[in-house]
Amino acid sequence: MTITIIGLGLIGGSLGLGLRQHGLASRLIGLEANPAYARRALELGLVDELAADLPAAVAPADLVVVAVPMDAMVTLLPQVLDLITDQQIVIDVGSTKGNLLAAVAQHPRRRRFVAVHPMAGTEYSGPDAAVRGLFEGKTLVICDAEASDPAAVATVEALFRALPMRVTHLGAADHDLHTAYVSHISHLTSFALALTVLEKERRGEQRIFDLAGGGFASTVRLAKSAPATWVPIFRQNRDNVLDVLDEHLHQLHQLRELLRQEDYAGLAAAFEKANAIKKIIP
Amino acid sequence: MTITIIGLGLIGGSLGLGLRQHGLASRLIGLEANPAYARRALELGLVDELAADLPAAVAPADLVVVAVPMDAMVTLLPQVLDLITDQQIVIDVGSTKGNLLAAVAQHPRRRRFVAVHPMAGTEYSGPDAAVRGLFEGKTLVICDAEASDPAAVATVEALFRALPMRVTHLGAADHDLHTAYVSHISHLTSFALALTVLEKERRGEQRIFDLAGGGFASTVRLAKSAPATWVPIFRQNRDNVLDVLDEHLHQLHQLRELLRQEDYAGLAAAFEKANAIKKIIP
Repeated sequence: MTITIIGLGLIGGSLGLGLRQHGLASRLIGLEANPAYARRALELGLVDELAADLPAAVAPADLVVVAVPMDAMVTLLPQVLDLITDQQIVIDVGSTKGNLLAAVAQHPRRRRFVAVHPMAGTEYSGPDAAVRGLFEGKTLVICDAEASDPAAVATVEALFRALPMRVTHLGAADHDLHTAYVSHISHLTSFALALTVLEKERRGEQRIFDLAGGGFASTVRLAKSAPATWVPIFRQNRDNVLDVLDEHLHQLHQLRELLRQEDYAGLAAAFEKANAIKKIIP
Repeated sequence: MTITIIGLGLIGGSLGLGLRQHGLASRLIGLEANPAYARRALELGLVDELAADLPAAVAPADLVVVAVPMDAMVTLLPQVLDLITDQQIVIDVGSTKGNLLAAVAQHPRRRRFVAVHPMAGTEYSGPDAAVRGLFEGKTLVICDAEASDPAAVATVEALFRALPMRVTHLGAADHDLHTAYVSHISHLTSFALALTVLEKERRGEQRIFDLAGGGFASTVRLAKSAPATWVPIFRQNRDNVLDVLDEHLHQLHQLRELLRQEDYAGLAAAFEKANAIKKIIP
């Protein structure tokens, strides 16, 4: 199968490595808007060759993967669908689905498009962030599969199961709500935590980080994430993120109030309740 | 050197393993209030033998390590100092120092006590959480060393350098402020994040965790921490934690406002500022 990957960053690049590793692509074509990234992707072997432009990238592909930041995705996906025949398949690998699916809902080639979200990533970005095995054992969410040709869905499922990934199905609205809870809010709190501590450091507390241990590193890790990736995700999923953020602020204010009132039994009860996360994240 | 460890949980137990591994204790005595923990600590070889009570635990020791939760520490440390000669040394390994040092400031044996905080831990607790190598390469903070006998400080420094740990010095007030920033606040945000998501799950969104990836696991990890460990830390460091929490809430509210107003340039600028954490936590 000839596969074209548009966008050779963390996700697109890691997918290229995975497809090659498992012998899933006979020919791997890349398209990347940033020339330095494009050269680097070729050096790193993320793809076999680079296409000159969008039509040249799409024409030979059995499957086109669109792996660009979410705002660009909403603009680019309809352009890719404009270029394909009814034998080709297009997937996105984006982190939000509602606006994206609305943007192609009426497209004549809509049924050749399968919306997927591989639930994997790191805080790094660009072709140098691409890592072999990023998707192994992770979950692929397919959204609104009923709007796609069953044969196209089956091809995409088989491809990702071979990486190997678990495959699950969700409606686009549920997907966007759930990812706000289990991914997007974690990034916002991590950015805010970094800003909190950096603000203190700015005031001359240079030694504050001497004491930073594993717990701090773990909660602040996502604050290294690229604004170019994450601002578009928050833009596309704004309403859900605001709802979840308000719930999170409510929980933080409650903990603050327990501490302020020296209600340590109440604080212990809240922490015990939070401990239930053990059952879920082993 | 005969060393007694009072409290055989994550920190006390891991210290026992480290002291044994590096041949730093000729005899390792334990005292543990929870009988099941005491038996388990012996089974796991965290110490060589168990003492029957506090006087029996303290009498033979060249060095006594007090490794109990912070509230118990403030009560227990003066009792241990009551029992020692001016040849013995006592250390605590607690996460907060201000109240603890105030509790022993006037004690006749104050100079035989050295306040230390090994900056290492995990989200687990009890003797089964003890791990070999927990302290290796980490930082030991010695607080208000000028209030201790120089020879006692030198003995304690040499012991921890042999684990091996880096040793640094801080005043108790600075220590408590800095740990609020780089440890305590991370735990509070993680507890609040867990509560946020669990609240959603409670309302019937059972599948929400199917999508949880590495980012969520990393930010929510500390929410598995034991209330019995953390409530006393927040109680002892309440004022600093409230100050840092207010700064964190301010940062979260600012991000919320940028998103609400769809000020995506402002959001990108805030995230870029947060990215500076890369220089600090590599």
